[in-house]
Amino acid sequence: MLSRRETSLLRALTTRGGRRRSEFCRCEGVRAVRELLDKRPDMVEFVAATARGFAALGCEPPNSRRLDETEFAALSDTVTNQGVLALARVPEERDELPSGDFILVLDRIGDPGNFGTMARTLLAVGGSDLWITKGTVDPWSDKAIRSGMGAQFALNIRRFDDLGAMTVAAGKYGFSRIFYADPHQGENCFRCADLYERSLIIIGGEANGSSELPPGTRSVRIPMPGNYESLNAAQAATVLLIEHTRREQTE
Amino acid sequence: MLSRRETSLLRALTTRGGRRRSEFCRCEGVRAVRELLDKRPDMVEFVAATARGFAALGCEPPNSRRLDETEFAALSDTVTNQGVLALARVPEERDELPSGDFILVLDRIGDPGNFGTMARTLLAVGGSDLWITKGTVDPWSDKAIRSGMGAQFALNIRRFDDLGAMTVAAGKYGFSRIFYADPHQGENCFRCADLYERSLIIIGGEANGSSELPPGTRSVRIPMPGNYESLNAAQAATVLLIEHTRREQTE
Repeated sequence: MLSRRETSLLRALTTRGGRRRSEFCRCEGVRAVRELLDKRPDMVEFVAATARGFAALGCEPPNSRRLDETEFAALSDTVTNQGVLALARVPEERDELPSGDFILVLDRIGDPGNFGTMARTLLAVGGSDLWITKGTVDPWSDKAIRSGMGAQFALNIRRFDDLGAMTVAAGKYGFSRIFYADPHQGENCFRCADLYERSLIIIGGEANGSSELPPGTRSVRIPMPGNYESLNAAQAATVLLIEHTRREQTE
Repeated sequence: MLSRRETSLLRALTTRGGRRRSEFCRCEGVRAVRELLDKRPDMVEFVAATARGFAALGCEPPNSRRLDETEFAALSDTVTNQGVLALARVPEERDELPSGDFILVLDRIGDPGNFGTMARTLLAVGGSDLWITKGTVDPWSDKAIRSGMGAQFALNIRRFDDLGAMTVAAGKYGFSRIFYADPHQGENCFRCADLYERSLIIIGGEANGSSELPPGTRSVRIPMPGNYESLNAAQAATVLLIEHTRREQTE
């Protein structure tokens, strides 16, 4: 059973207004809750699940709440739910030396599905630093967390007002190369030798590209011999992230 | 104005039953119609558009039909339409030597959006041969064409009952290497030297992977140092397609 306060908090977190006033986020789905429990157990307030949900999760964490299917369905934000959700605190941003070779920057990414895909792919290639500008979707919205399957909890996500403020923060740690994944022009990404040498790699929005790029930004382009403009933001990010792995493993 | 027969044909083509009985397909949206007109003008029966649609298209092809916004909205399969659609014949499959180094095989890909993304990416890397098995979505459904933005019309798409029949057909042209993009195991795709040497590269379904793989199939895997299973079918295809480009340009 959930208290009235807990229920209304979980409901409020599905709305933008409810999130803005809150230090909490909701994390729904088996894989997202697993990632949360694994990476940031200290952020968990409670897990609420049905019998089916606990079975799928494979454990019943401390401070869990059992709900019946009807109670859960009323709380769930999905049509076919997996019977598991968690209330978690939003991790604090850490102003610290980025632990990887590069920082992935999402600028004006408007789709929580794309955001989630890119967060997961960053984690998959062993990356850890995801920085975003104001125009990008809320990483801690229930949709973004579901799409990211909780990858958020394993990354250091930092938010900045604009790319200018971001480059100042990055420069402090010696991350001073700035690259923009440009669909139309720029250096061939496969021949750009210093692409991952303490750099920021900016992926612009699906609809309108990036916001104003800082002076000194270099454009990199994924070569497309078919001469057919095609890759969307998430695909472009995938290519640039996997290229880092490829170089690590073959060069 | 459209005749009653034309209207009901366009409507029927939004349903699976209507497509099964038809040699036609419907192609909606500015970019898809442009691709159709550019690559297969011989397939076009007519273009139907509003004044706004023709303006966006930048031309009024022969045998066009002008519709007002209300007429168009009644025909459109999208909520916010672009005012352009075409009725086209489905191109015939060509049993001929594949023109590229490899054939992209989509096996049990169930989502028209994923299908379209992969068709566009194949075209973007200069590929031309897209072979599919029965369990894959209809490439000529209105959704798949919209998502593929008409890339279908620039590719040679062939359908087979199963991977066995497909490998026989490919073997006839000397395409005898078979690779399966395996999420879990196999040769590192970046170190697999003959990946694009007259090969079939199989992408399995989002939900259940591939159907039965032919004997001699080799698994290739995209290395994921983050140890976090992540890439979906369309992302995996993107990586394997772009790797071909990378090798062409840098090796």
